Amino acid sequence: MNEIFDPEQPDYIHRLAVGVEYMGGRYSGWQAQASGTPTVQTTLETALGQVADHPVRLYCAGRTDAGVHATAQVVHFDTAAQRSPYGWILGTNTHLPKDISVQWVKPMDHNFHARFMARARRYRYVIYNHTIPSAVLREGMTWEKRPLAVERMQAAANLLVGEHDFSAFRAAACQAHSPIKTVYHCRVVRQGRMVVIDVRANAFLHHMVRNFAGVLMTIGCGDAPVQWAADVLSGRSRREGGVTARPDGLYFVGAEYDNAFRLPQPAVGPAFLGEHLW
Amino acid sequence: MNEIFDPEQPDYIHRLAVGVEYMGGRYSGWQAQASGTPTVQTTLETALGQVADHPVRLYCAGRTDAGVHATAQVVHFDTAAQRSPYGWILGTNTHLPKDISVQWVKPMDHNFHARFMARARRYRYVIYNHTIPSAVLREGMTWEKRPLAVERMQAAANLLVGEHDFSAFRAAACQAHSPIKTVYHCRVVRQGRMVVIDVRANAFLHHMVRNFAGVLMTIGCGDAPVQWAADVLSGRSRREGGVTARPDGLYFVGAEYDNAFRLPQPAVGPAFLGEHLW
Repeated sequence: MNEIFDPEQPDYIHRLAVGVEYMGGRYSGWQAQASGTPTVQTTLETALGQVADHPVRLYCAGRTDAGVHATAQVVHFDTAAQRSPYGWILGTNTHLPKDISVQWVKPMDHNFHARFMARARRYRYVIYNHTIPSAVLREGMTWEKRPLAVERMQAAANLLVGEHDFSAFRAAACQAHSPIKTVYHCRVVRQGRMVVIDVRANAFLHHMVRNFAGVLMTIGCGDAPVQWAADVLSGRSRREGGVTARPDGLYFVGAEYDNAFRLPQPAVGPAFLGEHLW
Repeated sequence: MNEIFDPEQPDYIHRLAVGVEYMGGRYSGWQAQASGTPTVQTTLETALGQVADHPVRLYCAGRTDAGVHATAQVVHFDTAAQRSPYGWILGTNTHLPKDISVQWVKPMDHNFHARFMARARRYRYVIYNHTIPSAVLREGMTWEKRPLAVERMQAAANLLVGEHDFSAFRAAACQAHSPIKTVYHCRVVRQGRMVVIDVRANAFLHHMVRNFAGVLMTIGCGDAPVQWAADVLSGRSRREGGVTARPDGLYFVGAEYDNAFRLPQPAVGPAFLGEHLW
């Protein structure tokens, strides 16, 4: 028998953290939309709700945009249902389409919050960089035909590290209270025909990584000098920031919490995301 | 003006070799089918024919099965059309769906034949080996939830190397003249959650690599002893050979020709195919 959710009996209610992978190509982003179009949040809430036997509301570490993927999204929800972690994983995955999967489930204290307790987030942007597009390395990455000079990209990326007003890299629709964020690192690595941009920050503005990628790719192919990254940053105007790179290549790859929460480490990253960067 | 194909004027006709990548999930294999269902061959012949302005007939190094992929298929055809190699590549890719792409084109002498001149072929079989399926590492690989011991798999793989009668690994529909082939190597490597089986042989029987993978996975998860690989081989009966592994994880990754032909080397393998094996 399932426990039935009863808001009058809060003792029954416990909190679970969940590690989630998804490919975002078929979804209008993470967040539930008023229009009712399919999102990762609503799809996952429906699947978890079927296992819980009551409606479930999810909170996530990093709300990803339409078409953006995740290897290590962290979410939490409250439930009255009693299941083993493995029971939650198996049951939920049975109700999910194959492009979303629950990787781990862990009971948490009520002071845990997937969004507000995250101290850092990390994204990877994956580029297939070759004159001719690949049929095999195509899904989940962005194709750039112009040769990219990663040394120039890394020099420009270094100019974006630190605490700054990132208004120049912020979408108009961004709802963040402040444009001031701290970028802990921004690394650019080539592996054969792949170029990976790896960004870790306390938090991100809307489109911030895709706007970083747009500027770095413009510099990498020689269309702008390295210094342009600093000029865009100090200008604090989105109109000076160039193109927003396509969402296809973007992955949410990590949320970091206080060690006391003892959350499972993210799975080893897919090799094409630059495994040695983990 | 395009040159028009005229069989009365053989001087106009020259031979081109082509390097092709594809993801086979949407196709009924390489070979044109009497039923007219879409195959890689017919799709590529149509695209090349549009660039050539005359019908084109293709010959390939290794005819892949339904659902099987290729990173380095080699094909050839004869044409009267005059195009630069880059013109052929760009033009053909414009007419191809995104899951097939031409990577290189090279003019050849008439003594070159993609099938009959190939001295060796190479396949990779890619397994995602974890209790829980991945949403990100899913396309183009096979999921095996039981833990695989790669040392046992490699010990078994070693028993399959050499010149043998491979009837036990041959599909009933196989059209090869002889079941005797020479396997030059069969390597099993783990990279994190990925297990890759890499097989190089002078030629392959129908389903041979998938039947190798089925036997090696059965041994790797402990359902059969290492020696079983040798017993299956010496039994020469398909009925003793266990399951045929799914096509999803199989890639044609190389065809080898005499160096005098100076064919382009295969592109660096996708990282998830075990890049260090190249």
